[in-house]
Amino acid sequence: MLTVNARAIAGPEESFKPTTVELRDLGPHDVLIDIAYVGICHSDVSHARGSWGETHYPLVPGHEIAGTVSAVGAAVTTFAVGDRAGVGCMVDSCRECANCRAGQEQQCTVNHVTTYGAIGRDGRRTNGGYSEKIVVDESFVLRLPDGIPLPNVAPLLCAGITMYSPLRHWRAGPDKRVAILGFGGLGHMGVQLSKALGAHTTVLDLSLDKREDGLRLGADDYRSTVDETTFKDLAEAFDLIVSTVPTSVDFNPFLGLLAMDGTLVSIGVSSKPLTIEPFSLIVNRRSIAGSRIGSIAETQEMLDFCGDRGIGAQIELISADQIDEAFDRVVAGDVKFRFVIDNSTL
Amino acid sequence: MLTVNARAIAGPEESFKPTTVELRDLGPHDVLIDIAYVGICHSDVSHARGSWGETHYPLVPGHEIAGTVSAVGAAVTTFAVGDRAGVGCMVDSCRECANCRAGQEQQCTVNHVTTYGAIGRDGRRTNGGYSEKIVVDESFVLRLPDGIPLPNVAPLLCAGITMYSPLRHWRAGPDKRVAILGFGGLGHMGVQLSKALGAHTTVLDLSLDKREDGLRLGADDYRSTVDETTFKDLAEAFDLIVSTVPTSVDFNPFLGLLAMDGTLVSIGVSSKPLTIEPFSLIVNRRSIAGSRIGSIAETQEMLDFCGDRGIGAQIELISADQIDEAFDRVVAGDVKFRFVIDNSTL
Repeated sequence: MLTVNARAIAGPEESFKPTTVELRDLGPHDVLIDIAYVGICHSDVSHARGSWGETHYPLVPGHEIAGTVSAVGAAVTTFAVGDRAGVGCMVDSCRECANCRAGQEQQCTVNHVTTYGAIGRDGRRTNGGYSEKIVVDESFVLRLPDGIPLPNVAPLLCAGITMYSPLRHWRAGPDKRVAILGFGGLGHMGVQLSKALGAHTTVLDLSLDKREDGLRLGADDYRSTVDETTFKDLAEAFDLIVSTVPTSVDFNPFLGLLAMDGTLVSIGVSSKPLTIEPFSLIVNRRSIAGSRIGSIAETQEMLDFCGDRGIGAQIELISADQIDEAFDRVVAGDVKFRFVIDNSTL
Repeated sequence: MLTVNARAIAGPEESFKPTTVELRDLGPHDVLIDIAYVGICHSDVSHARGSWGETHYPLVPGHEIAGTVSAVGAAVTTFAVGDRAGVGCMVDSCRECANCRAGQEQQCTVNHVTTYGAIGRDGRRTNGGYSEKIVVDESFVLRLPDGIPLPNVAPLLCAGITMYSPLRHWRAGPDKRVAILGFGGLGHMGVQLSKALGAHTTVLDLSLDKREDGLRLGADDYRSTVDETTFKDLAEAFDLIVSTVPTSVDFNPFLGLLAMDGTLVSIGVSSKPLTIEPFSLIVNRRSIAGSRIGSIAETQEMLDFCGDRGIGAQIELISADQIDEAFDRVVAGDVKFRFVIDNSTL
């Protein structure tokens, strides 16, 4: 049993405090990772501050984990000490349901074990990456590309795959016109990935404040959604819209931007229902769909793709003492584009 | 100018009365069809009784038209006098927009000319099939299969293609599990078509009253949607659900019946919005989509398919004097499964 430093939050209105967590002894298939950096995902804030319902405190968040393997179990074949390694939003699944057998373990319907706040196979509550180290079954550990600095890799483990998976599934490519709705942590990855996949890529955001960043990261166009002319100019212009914004947004005007057989994919999670006019879907045979991260295999594909193309997240590196302040800034949308914690400061 | 007998309704609370309509002289590409039978579609009732907003009266409805060619324009090459011929929900389109050029004229965004109640290319209001004859451009006339009685063919022109198109687009076939939600005029075509395409086919209807009919027409299973166990037994069971019911239905429980990458297609048109829980879509990467009839080419494909397989609508043949009574029974869902007017009684 290894005891390591971490940061935990004890309640929805508390601040983060230093603590320690105990890691299980390495099983034959376990990998011990020394965590160098961990990204702050918007869902960390939602969990930590209790806005998604029941949160078990104390909570150690963090599912954008990048580090180095420091020990491996006796039967581990896929990682060796010293390898760069990452962990995303899940650390286990049932491995037996139809989705697991189909290689879609991110959609496991029996026992999807999230990286923090879940109950693992060992019966213990999982703790995330705001921690010095983590023990994870090798089947849920990712190889990280060498060419990209680790702090810029960390956010790929959630923000990257969450954008890459729908872009790939709905076939973003040279013959497609893609819009990324919302230009934050997810959106800035979406622009880079959509462009690298060859699609004509447009950012739709409330303001034009980050337009220069958008164009620099590859966007072909960047429009404000408070400007009425956007909806006239771009009527029926897109094959795919990936929305990164909370779903309390009225999607009906955005459905009007979809061409024949176009799809709006919402990856935002909200407790508020979507309200969709039936006619918005019937015209042009449109679809609205959901998506959730991606499989382990697809996450590895995304990491390799990013390595080949030199794609990383744009980040602001912070120390562990700045987590609460960073959370406030995430809520305010005041970050370009992802906070990443330097875990040496834990 | 030909003047022919028809039945028209003069206002939302009126009854149908005998009238005459004037048909345009045959242009070079026009086909004159002697209408033998016309189906009564639920949308005829909605239009005639003004529940879809602005209706121009007097209205001659009818877009499930089956008959015989009695004259052709000088340049017509695809039909000859004596041919069986049908007309569905549209009689023209702009032929120039992206959707028309892509062969999806049912989604024409510029000038989709519906069979009745629209303004045609000649500047006159279109009249539907509750009429002795109709003049239609040959590009919008369908060949009818020989092996199926004309009264049973008529409903294929709307109910048939409205079901066939989404079943084909979302690839109903031997490896797919399909549910047809609602077992009326549309649903009973959906069951026959889904089964003929090779899919495992389940009917979901409020009651089990028409279960024997469902099984006779090919359904593998037939379940009641007021029975809670249906939603437990069939959780994640389907790849495709085609809903024929008004969209005021709460679709969220039905989304729970979709397996990974499953799609719920709603072909119902309602002024009420759909209310969708975001999580219902994110789980299993589900989609909800709309669909509207099908292209002329696909309608011909459907008619040929039905001809090859001996598929027709189950109908109740009525005289023109029974239209009002039939409308009331359509609203009450009291028809097995489509009323068809014998146009010799006009």
